[in-house]
Amino acid sequence: MTLLEYISEKQSWMNKHLLDTIEKQKIPEHLKNSMIYSVEAGGKRLRPILLMATYEAFRPLSEHVIPAACAIEMIHTYSLIHDDLPAMDDDDFRRGKPTNHKQFGEGTAILAGDGLLTAAFYVISSSPLLNAEEKIFLIRELSKASGPEGMVAGQMLDLQAEKKSIDLSELEHIHLLKTGELIRFSVRAGAYLGGAAPPQLEQMDHYGKALGMIFQIQDDILDVVGNKDEIGKPVGSDESSEKSTFPKLLGLAGANEKKKHYMNKAREALKQADITHPLLYEFIDFSGNRNY
Amino acid sequence: MTLLEYISEKQSWMNKHLLDTIEKQKIPEHLKNSMIYSVEAGGKRLRPILLMATYEAFRPLSEHVIPAACAIEMIHTYSLIHDDLPAMDDDDFRRGKPTNHKQFGEGTAILAGDGLLTAAFYVISSSPLLNAEEKIFLIRELSKASGPEGMVAGQMLDLQAEKKSIDLSELEHIHLLKTGELIRFSVRAGAYLGGAAPPQLEQMDHYGKALGMIFQIQDDILDVVGNKDEIGKPVGSDESSEKSTFPKLLGLAGANEKKKHYMNKAREALKQADITHPLLYEFIDFSGNRNY
Repeated sequence: MTLLEYISEKQSWMNKHLLDTIEKQKIPEHLKNSMIYSVEAGGKRLRPILLMATYEAFRPLSEHVIPAACAIEMIHTYSLIHDDLPAMDDDDFRRGKPTNHKQFGEGTAILAGDGLLTAAFYVISSSPLLNAEEKIFLIRELSKASGPEGMVAGQMLDLQAEKKSIDLSELEHIHLLKTGELIRFSVRAGAYLGGAAPPQLEQMDHYGKALGMIFQIQDDILDVVGNKDEIGKPVGSDESSEKSTFPKLLGLAGANEKKKHYMNKAREALKQADITHPLLYEFIDFSGNRNY
Repeated sequence: MTLLEYISEKQSWMNKHLLDTIEKQKIPEHLKNSMIYSVEAGGKRLRPILLMATYEAFRPLSEHVIPAACAIEMIHTYSLIHDDLPAMDDDDFRRGKPTNHKQFGEGTAILAGDGLLTAAFYVISSSPLLNAEEKIFLIRELSKASGPEGMVAGQMLDLQAEKKSIDLSELEHIHLLKTGELIRFSVRAGAYLGGAAPPQLEQMDHYGKALGMIFQIQDDILDVVGNKDEIGKPVGSDESSEKSTFPKLLGLAGANEKKKHYMNKAREALKQADITHPLLYEFIDFSGNRNY
């Protein structure tokens, strides 16, 4: 099975579980609609699918991955809802659809984000598919990766960076936090649940970190060279703002070089972890070469 | 020791631990300042102190309560920051100080709230003071109480109720969720950590639910009869809006009757749970008779 076939198959499995998870909770209708609207807004589910592929590198896939996979996507979705708000990035469209606050109003969008974030921890802590040790590992690492030392820190620094020029190391630091930490957690969670030995977990951590950078650099590159219909937002929307990006700081060729550097690092980490499963290698090429 | 002495003593203990918890994390300076600003904004710490007093009804107080107590106050603080935002209640002052978004800007306030919420689960899951079973109990119940089936649901219904007239049962439902669930959790967490037997835990649940209603009814009453300097916001700010309150639906005498009904229910629940510790009885009178 190629990675694209794997992604397409796992997307529908993931969508079903994500919707079930939210549907079965007793949530006021308007709030539930708003949460589901953003969860259904056509996300690629790359983070949960990365978790599954990593798990499969260690043992056959099972429903064991569901709670962590759902929790990651709920947290990713909340972060997009809050990030799109007028006080943050002020975006009217995401993936070709009106953003949550455009569709439901700002107050509801804030609450939908808060609700998805909080429910992510409920999904893990209340699951019958995980033992106590697994629940605590996942909650501790997820709350750190997505909290004020992780993703939220990255969003804060990103917001501040809009008003000033930053250098390459600052840009890398922001992205390691803002997008990298959750991608890194997806890999760590998959490896841990799959039963990776501690030295393997450490190498997988390097893989996850590198993958996060590849994603972000490619995002920046696509904003310069991509096709609006495929990426779902106006091309050049970063360029027209004051925002620092990899192509702006390094040029397009330099950004591509940087991306290749991280692609090599990611491959090296997989080799060090004795991973032979092809999906995780394909993930590197997919992340670096995708055109949407 | 009277309840007021107890509260004043425990407030400083609580403040120290709360600040330590946030200070020791590696959080970008501006975000950390914003989180600490609201945590330090002079909250009464009633929820964590209620947890401690409940714990003491079952066994002597120890640092065992710290992670849950900090997590509750962090979640309470986040909910105030988001609730004050222009898209929600649009308040410029809280407890006599500018609200978080007035001081730090809306984007930072949204992130400070997200950060406090997420870090609350990190505080519990990473604590050496709790065993695995306790961590999972606390995270499961706290995420449910404060999430889209609990506090966030209450905020959603409250936001919708601003634009229409609601009846008494709807008003009670909103408050049971919006303020009640977190107060109820504070009692449940204290009783559980203190080692309450299951039938006692059930009675303490009734106590917590009733106490939440007493708080809210008294809040509404104080908005009509209170002193601006003592409550820290303009008196009559609810009255001048279209918002439904207990005095509006029942008259002042009717609201006081309703409050007494819940005060009796709370006392009855304590008796059924065989509680003799005076602090929890005093909490009922304090909540119902406070003038700030």
